[in-house]
Amino acid sequence: MTDFATLEPLILQTDSKILLLVMDGLGGLPRDAGGLTELETARTPNMDALAAGGQLGLSLPIAPGVTPGSGPAHLSLFGYDPLKYVIGRGALEALGIGFPLGDQDVAARGNFCTVDAQGNVTDRRAGRIRDEEGKRLCQILSQIRLPGVEVFVEPVKEHRWALILRGEGLSCELSETDPGVLGRPPLAVRAHTQAAQQTADLVNEFIAQARRLLANEHPANMVLLRGFAKHPGFPTFDRVYGLRAGAVAVYPMYRGLASLLGMQVLDTGPTIEDEFRTVARHWNDFNFLYVHVKKTDTMGEDGNFDGKVHVIEEVDACLPVLTALKPDVIVITGDHSTPAAFKSHSWHPVPTLLASRWCRGEPGAKFGERACAAGVWGAFHATSIMSEALGHAGKLARYGA
Amino acid sequence: MTDFATLEPLILQTDSKILLLVMDGLGGLPRDAGGLTELETARTPNMDALAAGGQLGLSLPIAPGVTPGSGPAHLSLFGYDPLKYVIGRGALEALGIGFPLGDQDVAARGNFCTVDAQGNVTDRRAGRIRDEEGKRLCQILSQIRLPGVEVFVEPVKEHRWALILRGEGLSCELSETDPGVLGRPPLAVRAHTQAAQQTADLVNEFIAQARRLLANEHPANMVLLRGFAKHPGFPTFDRVYGLRAGAVAVYPMYRGLASLLGMQVLDTGPTIEDEFRTVARHWNDFNFLYVHVKKTDTMGEDGNFDGKVHVIEEVDACLPVLTALKPDVIVITGDHSTPAAFKSHSWHPVPTLLASRWCRGEPGAKFGERACAAGVWGAFHATSIMSEALGHAGKLARYGA
Repeated sequence: MTDFATLEPLILQTDSKILLLVMDGLGGLPRDAGGLTELETARTPNMDALAAGGQLGLSLPIAPGVTPGSGPAHLSLFGYDPLKYVIGRGALEALGIGFPLGDQDVAARGNFCTVDAQGNVTDRRAGRIRDEEGKRLCQILSQIRLPGVEVFVEPVKEHRWALILRGEGLSCELSETDPGVLGRPPLAVRAHTQAAQQTADLVNEFIAQARRLLANEHPANMVLLRGFAKHPGFPTFDRVYGLRAGAVAVYPMYRGLASLLGMQVLDTGPTIEDEFRTVARHWNDFNFLYVHVKKTDTMGEDGNFDGKVHVIEEVDACLPVLTALKPDVIVITGDHSTPAAFKSHSWHPVPTLLASRWCRGEPGAKFGERACAAGVWGAFHATSIMSEALGHAGKLARYGA
Repeated sequence: MTDFATLEPLILQTDSKILLLVMDGLGGLPRDAGGLTELETARTPNMDALAAGGQLGLSLPIAPGVTPGSGPAHLSLFGYDPLKYVIGRGALEALGIGFPLGDQDVAARGNFCTVDAQGNVTDRRAGRIRDEEGKRLCQILSQIRLPGVEVFVEPVKEHRWALILRGEGLSCELSETDPGVLGRPPLAVRAHTQAAQQTADLVNEFIAQARRLLANEHPANMVLLRGFAKHPGFPTFDRVYGLRAGAVAVYPMYRGLASLLGMQVLDTGPTIEDEFRTVARHWNDFNFLYVHVKKTDTMGEDGNFDGKVHVIEEVDACLPVLTALKPDVIVITGDHSTPAAFKSHSWHPVPTLLASRWCRGEPGAKFGERACAAGVWGAFHATSIMSEALGHAGKLARYGA
């Protein structure tokens, strides 16, 4: 990684444009031993043409053998060391549902749970109630009022929800209420610092009211709170790269993350072509655009090899919408691998393509994992992609005389 | 990078010899998309023969996307982390003209500038006066006498020159005089520390005298001073590698840098063959020799693809002078890339060849960027070249039992 302090004095303000196309979970594995991966199987004439005049390599999202979550994987792509730039779990939960987390807000992950007549936890996930039931219970908890702060109770999925408190002087230096084992009652929240005592009192009051409101519900008759966190306040794209950045993504998590880094998140239709046309529509407003395609990952998670191949081919077929914009630098990659054979995120390095007028070129190459392993870009950490792109875009001054 | 503290306990004193041949700006780009780079185009049978029994890789001088200046790029090649070992701009300017900067000297970059009748700067570069005019004005400023210190005013190029003060107790903790904008007078030098006050007074006295001496000149009727710095005092090759190092280079900047790292800088004729014969003449006096070829970079800067190809072929033709010496390890690389297509230093990784009797070999390879990308040495930071060479030369003890 090139750290921000090293880059800062080198940043040049130019109008040259960088386009970052992320196919979520792009990296794959052969369906059968000795065969081709999803990307190697897909017909991708447009990407292959970019590769011919570009450069290929394999990017490592976190560390060898380490499987990334989507948040850290994206931070890494954006050049933020994912081991250093950590988003607290409560903030990540709020971000993931697109909640507009303010600088002073405190967010926590909420679980509905089941307690017995003595108040001891018997099921930490309340039988994984359905989404609709979770939503109904969140509406009930939304009645809770606390002195001097606004309370938001936002459903996430099944038994999971997010609590956000908004007000002056709140602290996230709080202990969790999940006892971690069954047969014990939820813990009271304790303040880790004196300044957090007021917030601890407010959260305990929230829990007391929740207990009363849920007393006659079943199985979700109590709550657990974990991962108290604030907005991480990371330095923004504007500050670290001098970029006016726009983001095109459908899923709230990616929209939230882009917003967190100071990108302007654009309204878009849901299809790949919709997203690419959104990029085109806003092309003149930014000098960095990030566009996120989710379905590659979804197909990988489903174990649908052919489906993932098809999504990649759909991206390739729509690619002329982007290349017609003539970006000075285009990077096509994934945030991590989601091999259909593995049915989950994996640790495998991610095929990465960069094209600019200043590349050494990969004549005859087909964009894919093994071509990338043999590519002129070599193997690198994903956090180096941004500075590589800035260099190709003429946005970095010479280091030293 | 392998840091010096890790290497130190492993260093072995042996007579085995390492030869480092640096073709400045060696890395290139295809002239036309899909074509060959300068190095790939050049006929280099001698280097290719070394590659067959050697190892190829791509070295990164500073950081991905970051274009190096010659100073940091060379420090990196010599194994000094260029982000940590920073040479102050005044010291670098003195170094670049071959001025023998002493440990206690303070150096600054000087500019001739133009001021109006009110003393406000109207041109920070005095119309970029010709070299001859700059030299004449430096001779005028050389009349300046300051109490207790020697004053050197050394022309660099056009409006640029270097000021060096030599004496006891001087400090470089000084502010700059360049107001940074037009329409304001040059600033007085301020001391950042109390210990620097005496030096600040001396420099302000220098400026006052310079103003009087230049009052009737045009357009260069005033001076600006920036980048006050001392000799950086880096640990020497002898200390960090246990090497008796000699340097063969024509340009003052490279001779100065080699001297800074404790290499003995040898007198040499100007041609490539002259330089290689200088290496041969001093072969028995050293166990590390650095030889620098400048013209590859010059041709790249000029956008002269064929000229760069020709220089590389000339180096190859002269190479038997070096290989006849039977170095235990020979490294052939560049300090950075200067693609003729780019007409400037660039950020691209640099093709690098190491040959010793302990290499895995690259049968059939032709020394070039893409062969290096596919080479058995892989991709690495330039600061790792020295420890790799020490290992091949049998100069590093086993780490641990």
